[in-house]
Amino acid sequence: MLKSLGRVLSVLFICSTIFGQSTSPVMLGFSSDSTSAQTALEAKFDSSLNPNNLRDWMKRMSSRPHHIGSAYNKENADFIASQFRAWGYDTKLEEFQVLFPTPKTRLVEMTAPEKFKLELQETEMKEDATSGQLREQLPSYNAYSIDGDVTAPLVYVNYGVPSDYDELERRGVDVHGKIVISRYGGSWRGIKPKVAAEHGAVGCIIYSDPRNDGYYQGDVYPKGSWRSENGVQRGSVMDMPLYPGDPLTKGIGASKNAKRIEIKNAETLTKIPVLPISYADALPLLRNLDGAVVPESWRGALPITYHFGNKTPTVHLKLEFNWNTVSIYDVIAKMTGSERPDQWIIRGNHRDAWVNGADDPTSGQVAMMEEARAIAELAKSGWRPKRTIVFAAWDGEEEGLLGSTEWVEEHAEELSKKAAVYINTDSNGRGFLGIGGSHTLEKFMNEVAKSVPDPQTKISVWERARAEQAINGSPTAKREAMDRADLRISPLGSGSDFTPFLQHLGIASLNVGFGGEDGGGSYHSIYDSYDHYTKFGDPGFAYGIALSKVCGHTTLRLANADTLPFEFSNLAETLNGYATEVTKLTDTMRDDTRTLNQQISSGMLKAVQDPTETYVMPTEKSAVPFVNFAPLQNSIARLNDSVKNYQATAKVRKVSSAALDEALYKTERALTRSEGLPRRDWFRHAIYAPGFYTGYGVKTMPGIREAIEQRDWKEAGEQIRVVAEVIDALATEIDKAAELLVK
Amino acid sequence: MLKSLGRVLSVLFICSTIFGQSTSPVMLGFSSDSTSAQTALEAKFDSSLNPNNLRDWMKRMSSRPHHIGSAYNKENADFIASQFRAWGYDTKLEEFQVLFPTPKTRLVEMTAPEKFKLELQETEMKEDATSGQLREQLPSYNAYSIDGDVTAPLVYVNYGVPSDYDELERRGVDVHGKIVISRYGGSWRGIKPKVAAEHGAVGCIIYSDPRNDGYYQGDVYPKGSWRSENGVQRGSVMDMPLYPGDPLTKGIGASKNAKRIEIKNAETLTKIPVLPISYADALPLLRNLDGAVVPESWRGALPITYHFGNKTPTVHLKLEFNWNTVSIYDVIAKMTGSERPDQWIIRGNHRDAWVNGADDPTSGQVAMMEEARAIAELAKSGWRPKRTIVFAAWDGEEEGLLGSTEWVEEHAEELSKKAAVYINTDSNGRGFLGIGGSHTLEKFMNEVAKSVPDPQTKISVWERARAEQAINGSPTAKREAMDRADLRISPLGSGSDFTPFLQHLGIASLNVGFGGEDGGGSYHSIYDSYDHYTKFGDPGFAYGIALSKVCGHTTLRLANADTLPFEFSNLAETLNGYATEVTKLTDTMRDDTRTLNQQISSGMLKAVQDPTETYVMPTEKSAVPFVNFAPLQNSIARLNDSVKNYQATAKVRKVSSAALDEALYKTERALTRSEGLPRRDWFRHAIYAPGFYTGYGVKTMPGIREAIEQRDWKEAGEQIRVVAEVIDALATEIDKAAELLVK
Repeated sequence: MLKSLGRVLSVLFICSTIFGQSTSPVMLGFSSDSTSAQTALEAKFDSSLNPNNLRDWMKRMSSRPHHIGSAYNKENADFIASQFRAWGYDTKLEEFQVLFPTPKTRLVEMTAPEKFKLELQETEMKEDATSGQLREQLPSYNAYSIDGDVTAPLVYVNYGVPSDYDELERRGVDVHGKIVISRYGGSWRGIKPKVAAEHGAVGCIIYSDPRNDGYYQGDVYPKGSWRSENGVQRGSVMDMPLYPGDPLTKGIGASKNAKRIEIKNAETLTKIPVLPISYADALPLLRNLDGAVVPESWRGALPITYHFGNKTPTVHLKLEFNWNTVSIYDVIAKMTGSERPDQWIIRGNHRDAWVNGADDPTSGQVAMMEEARAIAELAKSGWRPKRTIVFAAWDGEEEGLLGSTEWVEEHAEELSKKAAVYINTDSNGRGFLGIGGSHTLEKFMNEVAKSVPDPQTKISVWERARAEQAINGSPTAKREAMDRADLRISPLGSGSDFTPFLQHLGIASLNVGFGGEDGGGSYHSIYDSYDHYTKFGDPGFAYGIALSKVCGHTTLRLANADTLPFEFSNLAETLNGYATEVTKLTDTMRDDTRTLNQQISSGMLKAVQDPTETYVMPTEKSAVPFVNFAPLQNSIARLNDSVKNYQATAKVRKVSSAALDEALYKTERALTRSEGLPRRDWFRHAIYAPGFYTGYGVKTMPGIREAIEQRDWKEAGEQIRVVAEVIDALATEIDKAAELLVK
Repeated sequence: MLKSLGRVLSVLFICSTIFGQSTSPVMLGFSSDSTSAQTALEAKFDSSLNPNNLRDWMKRMSSRPHHIGSAYNKENADFIASQFRAWGYDTKLEEFQVLFPTPKTRLVEMTAPEKFKLELQETEMKEDATSGQLREQLPSYNAYSIDGDVTAPLVYVNYGVPSDYDELERRGVDVHGKIVISRYGGSWRGIKPKVAAEHGAVGCIIYSDPRNDGYYQGDVYPKGSWRSENGVQRGSVMDMPLYPGDPLTKGIGASKNAKRIEIKNAETLTKIPVLPISYADALPLLRNLDGAVVPESWRGALPITYHFGNKTPTVHLKLEFNWNTVSIYDVIAKMTGSERPDQWIIRGNHRDAWVNGADDPTSGQVAMMEEARAIAELAKSGWRPKRTIVFAAWDGEEEGLLGSTEWVEEHAEELSKKAAVYINTDSNGRGFLGIGGSHTLEKFMNEVAKSVPDPQTKISVWERARAEQAINGSPTAKREAMDRADLRISPLGSGSDFTPFLQHLGIASLNVGFGGEDGGGSYHSIYDSYDHYTKFGDPGFAYGIALSKVCGHTTLRLANADTLPFEFSNLAETLNGYATEVTKLTDTMRDDTRTLNQQISSGMLKAVQDPTETYVMPTEKSAVPFVNFAPLQNSIARLNDSVKNYQATAKVRKVSSAALDEALYKTERALTRSEGLPRRDWFRHAIYAPGFYTGYGVKTMPGIREAIEQRDWKEAGEQIRVVAEVIDALATEIDKAAELLVK
């Protein structure tokens, strides 16, 4: 489901390319001896990886549409389970029952100035073998849109994010009672109908503009990878920033007999009907929009002048869904640890797709399967992991992280105790390594990334990622690529199955993938196919194997380490960075508010407007107060002391114990609060969350940051204290771990 | 000819809107008494201005095509002259004979992958009354292209500026022997064939991309103002940065018997054939380009994926011209000064057009005529200017500033003595005041701008321009809008008739106009018509009248002032700013060179390239040395002393004398050198010049700046000394003026 991975950043200039080999003499969490053994194990693991397996499995699993509830989805589940079983894993299917609406009626027509009915149909291409499987394909739609039948004038709202509505307001365009048309991009798609409904719109159409995903980006399919004129991006519009998973069973596993709320009470369904369309379908609608010309940043790549609309055209949007409940099946496969079986290293990738899903998710799924097979090979030759390894092939990710969320909710108690780390992957392709995750694992992942060669350049995937930052990064990223010891890993928002682990239960998580040289344009369409993927995604599956190596090494090191390789100095530095960011955010808002108010009161803002165009003068905003960030700063100062103390102690006392491991991995739990975030208690992590108005996009220190963004200074002050308490609790946990070292 | 005026910048926060009226109690160059008289005179002048005159004259003069050599061009000259005569001016036509090629053959065809012949024809529109005058219209072409007949593969070169060829080189695309296609924009058009020829191309096609000038910008004509699919931008491609004016009579007036060089020796003709086309004509060519996809900054708004090209398509370009000599006619009208008749205030606007030219140049021409009429009215009631006022309606500006350049060259000796200030206008439209010019007149023009109300907002045009900077300017402009006493006026490059005055003879010059709310898209096409202008340009001619006021007040104050209102502190500050810029330029280049060399030597630059795409690794550049800017800094320090001394003396000694006036206006002469700039001796001004590789775009301290840009450190050092000497000479002239104050 995740569209693009955040890219890792940068690194120390005293780097491997200059001073020799990249791997440290001793791996984090290992002794000198155990490092040698682990190095040999990883070499053996690497040597058994075979790209042909990835190719064969992808070809098989993507050969037919396999969305949830479909026959082929179950067949894939059984196939994956049979493989895991054959390799020796303790494997089962775990079933949940989830709400899954599918289209009964999809109608969009322009009713004025002329009558015109949209096609709403992706077309078969002879160059794409599976594109003609019409009978089994889910039609293009947005899952968890409500039913609706509305006729109203159309308004173009750009990306449909809150700032776009600010612009509409300034330009005197009211979307009340209107249908909005938004282009994909700029936010996660579910934000668009949510914000539209908040502003009084009665319907929402989302289309793929060729500027963002079509000929402007590159040649279209089948000549190139990009979306052709009839391609449509399906996708969920469930309000996942509230809670993911089955809409009817928030917080509990959607087992057969789980207590369910009524559909009409499900908060995560949209408030208005919403449908995605292609740019071929969007063109006649957009061409007929009246009103003023939109600002430059709103313009797409269709050969028209983009207008706001207001009265013309009028559009009729009618949607009816079958509100069915279907079964989903997670494949769960375990290899029990020899020494610390109650410490789980969980490795997951979803397996369901919108249609054939070669890239999303099969490219990641097959890499994971190959890891599992190679680890099983190691086990056959006598090795056993010290800790338990759990592989998970999730179902229902596309609709809203259904499979992972229900499983996590169902097993919350056990996972809270046992889950040490969750490692997620999703789509994967040719290009650069990207890692997101908990910053307690940042240093560890830098070591892992240095142990895997890049298939194209032969330098390590870490070095190539570093070069990317040094050459193409932001000014900060460029500087850090030269100055900082470790590449930064991105904080996690949402968009794939790490969310319930990290943000609901506080399980340290990772999300890993390659990309950037794999084109784009097949996302959630019928063209996300084996033909497309093997032409543009990762033709030789070399990056699939690279992913197997990165995640395999990650899993094996976590499973085998003498002590789990958590490290706190990078986290402390990162938290300090976030604290600086939110502080600066208020400073910037204060300056901006002062400037805007001055522009209004001086009459200058009015003076520069073109009097022949509508412009609604904004009102002055109340000044931004100075906020007390001291509790946050104090907690970070205390954290730094605790981290230094732990590091100093760990240097002289080499202890390996289950208790120490548990103390280490439970530090992530300390970053959660059972009260959750304001207005969304399912999200319990105080440092990482998807943005309430960005969707997948992360908000770090979300309680503080979103209160500031919403100009709620009282809540900002409260949330500063909350986050400070959480960081204090983390420091306490680290102190406890330090005590375990000297016991 | 000039496409857009540089916008003025900003101003003191202690401004008129807050503390009361904006005009100083005493005007610069006037006493308290003479200020009162002048204020009354300007009020009388303003009250006699009549927008209906502008409308009537525009309707008449734009009713038929009137390019040089055409019957209607001569008719307009006679009409204008008859008006000036009727108003009482001493009026004559001055005739020159100039080289003027017109098309005999224009052929562009795609020869492979399929045969396709381009239309090369703008189409009649029923909404535009003059668009069907096919018989009298100049076909779309670029004047001073050489003849040529070439067939070759096509390569897309973006804007065709030097940095675009750097990109082509990195991507392994060689334009040697190819025809290039460039979009308009990014530079003056004449740069495109010049740089293409330098890189070995054999032909050049220039087209208007809808991104820059078409539906991406706004609705196309006739619904909106913007260029429709068949619109073509004509224009000169003469190498004006070498020298403007008749190509055969560099430096001398092109009188009938002037000594002429042979056409084949004319340096300012292009080296390769070049033709402009519409985006409808460009589309099939661009659609067929092969090769890699171009970078994002190269992409236009046509509904295609933009490629570099290399082998496909092949194009046949055939151009033949009639290399005729035609007569041009400047209308020169004088009102002799009562006290200082040998001090001339010259006010000019061209009158020739590419086709009907309602906007370019008639909108400025009619405003100037109305000024002349209103000044004549004042004279009828007994008033006479102290100094001589000269009005000039230039011919042949479009082809290369022919009329103004030949007149200036013909009368160079007299002008060097007598010309105090030249005030230029060109196209004008609804919007914001823009002023470019000599910085010795910056403070004066700020006063003038405060004396004219904006037609739409009723605040002064100065205040509206300031608001525009404060709201929409660059960060620097925004800051200065609040902090600096005066709005900055832009340094002058080229693109209109000020060039020979300022840059050849060192006559302090101004260029004034309104714009920014007048749309665009008719530039140099058959749609630059009365219908287009009165719908989009300045429907009620209110900004025509505003221009009459700004330029009328400017002319009247310069003509009447006790002492010419030159002021040197703003110039000194501006020169210091330029010195800082060129110093920083070397620092930036040094850092960039160091970074690039490091990226190459570390292998990082290579590591981030997609190995499936062509990328030619750049070679390391030699390090940028530290350059001795001390002579420049010392000269500016000395200048500051001279300016302070002059100001202190002027404060206590109020002297009015012809000798002082002459000393003041000849300070601009001190900024010129008879040797001219390196490799282009016609351009004699050491501070302002059009860029050798930008065309119209200004390069300040051009000798220094362009040497640095070309990495010629030896020449940079030499030019620093040259500019320092020029600034020293200026200081000496200011010292002399100060002496005249105490005599």
